[in-house]
Amino acid sequence: MSIYTRFTVTRSSPSLWRVTFDNPPINLIDAVMMKELLNLLTEIERDKRVGVVLFDSADPDFFLAHYDIAGDPAELEGVETTAGRHPFTELHIRLSKSPAVTISAIRGRARGAGSEFALATDIRFASRERAVLGQFEIGVGAAPGGGALNRLSRLVILVSGKDFDGELAERYGYVNRAIPDEQFVDFVDAFAQRVSRFDLLALADIKRFVNAATLPADESLGAEIDAFWKSAKRPAFPALHSQAFKAGYSQRGPVELNLGDFVGTILADPDSYSTR
Amino acid sequence: MSIYTRFTVTRSSPSLWRVTFDNPPINLIDAVMMKELLNLLTEIERDKRVGVVLFDSADPDFFLAHYDIAGDPAELEGVETTAGRHPFTELHIRLSKSPAVTISAIRGRARGAGSEFALATDIRFASRERAVLGQFEIGVGAAPGGGALNRLSRLVILVSGKDFDGELAERYGYVNRAIPDEQFVDFVDAFAQRVSRFDLLALADIKRFVNAATLPADESLGAEIDAFWKSAKRPAFPALHSQAFKAGYSQRGPVELNLGDFVGTILADPDSYSTR
Amino acid sequence: MSIYTRFTVTRSSPSLWRVTFDNPPINLIDAVMMKELLNLLTEIERDKRVGVVLFDSADPDFFLAHYDIAGDPAELEGVETTAGRHPFTELHIRLSKSPAVTISAIRGRARGAGSEFALATDIRFASRERAVLGQFEIGVGAAPGGGALNRLSRLVILVSGKDFDGELAERYGYVNRAIPDEQFVDFVDAFAQRVSRFDLLALADIKRFVNAATLPADESLGAEIDAFWKSAKRPAFPALHSQAFKAGYSQRGPVELNLGDFVGTILADPDSYSTR
Repeated sequence: MSIYTRFTVTRSSPSLWRVTFDNPPINLIDAVMMKELLNLLTEIERDKRVGVVLFDSADPDFFLAHYDIAGDPAELEGVETTAGRHPFTELHIRLSKSPAVTISAIRGRARGAGSEFALATDIRFASRERAVLGQFEIGVGAAPGGGALNRLSRLVILVSGKDFDGELAERYGYVNRAIPDEQFVDFVDAFAQRVSRFDLLALADIKRFVNAATLPADESLGAEIDAFWKSAKRPAFPALHSQAFKAGYSQRGPVELNLGDFVGTILADPDSYSTR
Repeated sequence: MSIYTRFTVTRSSPSLWRVTFDNPPINLIDAVMMKELLNLLTEIERDKRVGVVLFDSADPDFFLAHYDIAGDPAELEGVETTAGRHPFTELHIRLSKSPAVTISAIRGRARGAGSEFALATDIRFASRERAVLGQFEIGVGAAPGGGALNRLSRLVILVSGKDFDGELAERYGYVNRAIPDEQFVDFVDAFAQRVSRFDLLALADIKRFVNAATLPADESLGAEIDAFWKSAKRPAFPALHSQAFKAGYSQRGPVELNLGDFVGTILADPDSYSTR
Repeated sequence: MSIYTRFTVTRSSPSLWRVTFDNPPINLIDAVMMKELLNLLTEIERDKRVGVVLFDSADPDFFLAHYDIAGDPAELEGVETTAGRHPFTELHIRLSKSPAVTISAIRGRARGAGSEFALATDIRFASRERAVLGQFEIGVGAAPGGGALNRLSRLVILVSGKDFDGELAERYGYVNRAIPDEQFVDFVDAFAQRVSRFDLLALADIKRFVNAATLPADESLGAEIDAFWKSAKRPAFPALHSQAFKAGYSQRGPVELNLGDFVGTILADPDSYSTR
């Protein structure tokens, strides 16, 4: 069994695993978390009895904040992936094809790569009052790269970079259902427990057919992450990130709590923006 | 004209046929009903004037309960189908490609194969208070096989096997619209009459193009039913059905009225469940 | 810069253009408007700085009424299109592939070709109280031909020809969001301004990937318009249009204000309808 430092794994029963993100201060997805999640997927694939994996967070304000863009890219070197894919794309593709049913229990912020992780799970429940979802990347000079373009595909969300609360996220089909926060834990637990008692091969059959009908092609996901890294080399990306970091990006505080609003306010030097 | 015993056909006008399911005690879909529905489709295809077929039920508690799994499979022998397809898949494929516009007016339960019949019609209206939809199959050890995986493709419904009332079914896109029950009959009748007065070739044009844009491939539907029959040979399927039948499955009573809840409570001998 | 007579173009900033339809009496889409819109798209494609184009209307009752079917087809001769496509299909294909993000701010009626124009833009906001959307074509003997079959693909809307208000349009996924009318202008303006300040290449990246995941094939759109013109040669089409024009079709007045209801009431000589 692997040792995990970015989340805890609770085996509520042989068929129900709870994975609780716990990477203070705001649950950034860093290289270590990605490597640990890839190891977790290997554990799930090898285990013959896990039917449901429920992802939640130890931090009521942050499910998964976003990718740790300030991290050292070298930390991801040596991660084995299929056909040389970026580890983040590899993670999402393996997650979506995992034989277990995966559920995101979203309280707090799930933005950028955190939103994309949730989009790669099978079912998304959101706290009506506490969940905040968004793809803020456009506000810092890039298109999302971790699957949102292919899995969510809603321009109204993607080009605005806004925050969406649980209720609006449900109306937009961004989550399956928004649940009043006071009922949230009980609802999600009962749902996960119920599903985890069903026959594992029957669950895998359902997921396999639904995946065949709905998953984007691996190649499209690969092209999406390539476009992201390409955009990161244009001047707007570092110029906007520089302003964001100065204001408190990636730290616990008002900028991260209201990142959707924040990215609507920053402006870089006009020369740093691209023309077509 | 064929003789029908499982439903009545009322020709409200040459272009509007009403098909009222009436197969006590709970409108199970049995071999006879399938054969009669295939004959009805032949009648519709040969008729040159029917534009709309409205399916409803004589039983306010059951639209179509589900498939009659206890029926003798031999009763389906000799049914002519395309390329040796299972008659149930044949029925749904022919239904979805029928030149007439088909409407399900769902009051009462539509679960399993009954839900899948409704999913193969073009439009689903549900009584907000009286409709109950669900794919309970996972609770008895199988993935749905009659099209729900390909036509509905929502894991939150399919892996939970839960019941969904009219309002939630609308929010999940499972039905087009939930109508307050006191307005239900008038709304559906007015809708069907309106559409039935329009030009038949124009209606057929609309359906042909929308089908081309939205219908799953016949092959995917064939693979889905094959997976169902394969799962029926695993130990969990008979073990769970045995418990369900003892409790009142396929009979009029509390188990069938609350089948979604019921399948969340039964547990078979642990050895009968599959591992991966 | 082209001269436009059917709409005004306001460059709120280099990256935000507002196009306000103004073609009294009811904002019909005529040949001149189509040619001007094609010229506008060329302007947008050549401009290197426009990121967002917001379409609204000078008439609070009509966003775009519908196609001017009484116009002289000769007026469209000589319009250069790709591979001989109908100019209307050409317009929608170019619109949906425009590098700028396009937004329809729908107050008043958007029916038929007007609805299809909105469907070819990237984002649709509707006034909850004042927006009315519909594809009424079935009521005058045709399937829609300008993209609704491929882009909307909802039989409940297309075969009924009914009017849908902002709220129901949102529930059916016909618009992205219905906004209370008193907040409508402020909401839409703030949204458009926000998006227009983001990096242009990042916006174009998002649109390109979402288009790849969601746009119908050009060929399907070509087949759709061909089927429309074929249906226009069947007897029902002129018979029903003749009655509609007598009652006030294409003029400002009660028929156009309530066109969805109206087309449910007209009946042509029974002999003019097609059988299959």
